Amino acid sequence: MDKPLRIGLAGVGTVGGGVVRVLTDNAARIAAQAGRPIMLAAVSALQQPKIPPGIRWESDAIALAKSTDVDVIVEAIGGHDGIARKVVETALQNGKHVVTANKALLAHHGFALATLAEQNHVTLLWEAAVGGAMPVVRGLRDALSGDVILTIEGILNGTCNYILSTMTDTGRSFTDVLADAQAQGFAEADPSTDVDGFDTAHKITLLAALAFGRPPDLASVAIEGIRAITPADISAAKADGQAIKLLAHASLVPEGRVTQWVRPCCVPLDSRFGATNGSFNALSVKTRYADTLFFAGRGAGSLPTASAVVADLVTLARGERPPAFGVRTERLKATP
Amino acid sequence: MDKPLRIGLAGVGTVGGGVVRVLTDNAARIAAQAGRPIMLAAVSALQQPKIPPGIRWESDAIALAKSTDVDVIVEAIGGHDGIARKVVETALQNGKHVVTANKALLAHHGFALATLAEQNHVTLLWEAAVGGAMPVVRGLRDALSGDVILTIEGILNGTCNYILSTMTDTGRSFTDVLADAQAQGFAEADPSTDVDGFDTAHKITLLAALAFGRPPDLASVAIEGIRAITPADISAAKADGQAIKLLAHASLVPEGRVTQWVRPCCVPLDSRFGATNGSFNALSVKTRYADTLFFAGRGAGSLPTASAVVADLVTLARGERPPAFGVRTERLKATP
Repeated sequence: MDKPLRIGLAGVGTVGGGVVRVLTDNAARIAAQAGRPIMLAAVSALQQPKIPPGIRWESDAIALAKSTDVDVIVEAIGGHDGIARKVVETALQNGKHVVTANKALLAHHGFALATLAEQNHVTLLWEAAVGGAMPVVRGLRDALSGDVILTIEGILNGTCNYILSTMTDTGRSFTDVLADAQAQGFAEADPSTDVDGFDTAHKITLLAALAFGRPPDLASVAIEGIRAITPADISAAKADGQAIKLLAHASLVPEGRVTQWVRPCCVPLDSRFGATNGSFNALSVKTRYADTLFFAGRGAGSLPTASAVVADLVTLARGERPPAFGVRTERLKATP
Repeated sequence: MDKPLRIGLAGVGTVGGGVVRVLTDNAARIAAQAGRPIMLAAVSALQQPKIPPGIRWESDAIALAKSTDVDVIVEAIGGHDGIARKVVETALQNGKHVVTANKALLAHHGFALATLAEQNHVTLLWEAAVGGAMPVVRGLRDALSGDVILTIEGILNGTCNYILSTMTDTGRSFTDVLADAQAQGFAEADPSTDVDGFDTAHKITLLAALAFGRPPDLASVAIEGIRAITPADISAAKADGQAIKLLAHASLVPEGRVTQWVRPCCVPLDSRFGATNGSFNALSVKTRYADTLFFAGRGAGSLPTASAVVADLVTLARGERPPAFGVRTERLKATP
């Protein structure tokens, strides 16, 4: 068996904690799948985290990103600027592969980071950034590499879907259900990123980049969130056999342009999207040859997200080096 | 750009014809995705097929499998013994990668063929063999490589699903609907492989091999087909909010054994399986960390199957070399 792939994990919160658990609990199967061990060498966190013995703790994430005894940095800090960005840039500049679940970072700086990765001959992977464990990055990048993708459409934010599902089931108001979700930890104290559609916009623009071979173009996403949805809207939809879902959409339009939007939509209750409830995500992909593919899975959560992060680590351990957006950055044509 | 990956296509029927079309029509995007052109160099068929100029025709598939000007053989002949097997063996022995949609061949001889591929340092890929364009091989092999798969369950035969969906919609008998399906070309003249569950058994045993790291074990699949389903069964299920579907199942049971079966089952009409109608296939995967993933897509058809075949060619062109069943054959432990 080859020598281990050595991981430096930046951030030990919800996602990072899940990565520690999966890499530790499932080490034997992971090594079999990867053809070599995947070893958690070091973690960074401001305070000493609870981690298994033998794993180095760094209080400084930038120092971790520069350390000579790791091959890959897993960025699990979050946020689209500040420390997360600096850690990813430093890691790439220091010749380390990066795996991240950070959709905000990639939606804002994905093209620059993919370019930096290529300049440094390393790989940037992000399956966990969209749809949690739902393998839509591999679906678009690998499974449809011989096809032509026409339209992608999906439910990409578990918090919004949970709120809308609960409103549909109970008839309660948005404000009520949001407050409950916050109390239970399903929604953030500042819920704007989720309920105003920005998180969904980050995700659809990343999938659009992959599907259509363009740099992520967050500025062109038309965004409408779910704050304005009333119980009356929900019950009117229901009476019509419909459910309201926050849908994200991206498609090729004539002249080669890509149109991208996020907005609440009615879908038939007995459709695949209508049957996608609670924190589940779903994605439908229309293609030229394969007709329609459909994916569903847990869109967030510590262990589902960690499962996707570790799958990317296995991809790296196997020696596979896919470009961040499926093709090399010089081939990503900017939208005209 | 690197030099082309040169393809030899054995068989120009439904699947092979689709591969010719996709490789020809979509050459530019495929080259961009692969990082190099994928070039159809030669095809074999008993009679001169209609193919674009510049592609060599061989009447002898074995000669094609030995030819020195191709890097990959796409086996699109079909059948689990005879010429298809000989072509795949010859190609592997002659140092060529093989891509196939032939589930019968792999269910019977997959372990031996995977071993032969390894001995010859070449790769055997088969995304198109199960679920057509639905990317379940990549799902199990790549996306869940960091996880532990507990149960896989799905609708894997489009002909059976079409017959059962039509019986449910119309109240007509199995014999009637089958005769219609045969007249329309949705079912074979000899329908036994489909309606008696053998094709589904081939597919579930291949997915089980990938999911659980075992050699395909067709003999241990308990198989029941759909011939005995009556309109009375269908309407009784319907009255209960259920649909009858031919389900395939494989799961880990205590002591590390794998249980595999194919049989008609009732599923709620408003469930994901209940909503999978006509020639669509679906697969649900329960895992330790990622919870449940769900895939759906066209399970068969010329272009969907070709899309999956070409995706495997792109994988090879990118230099990726996954083992046929996810791990090397010496790691596939036989079921105790």
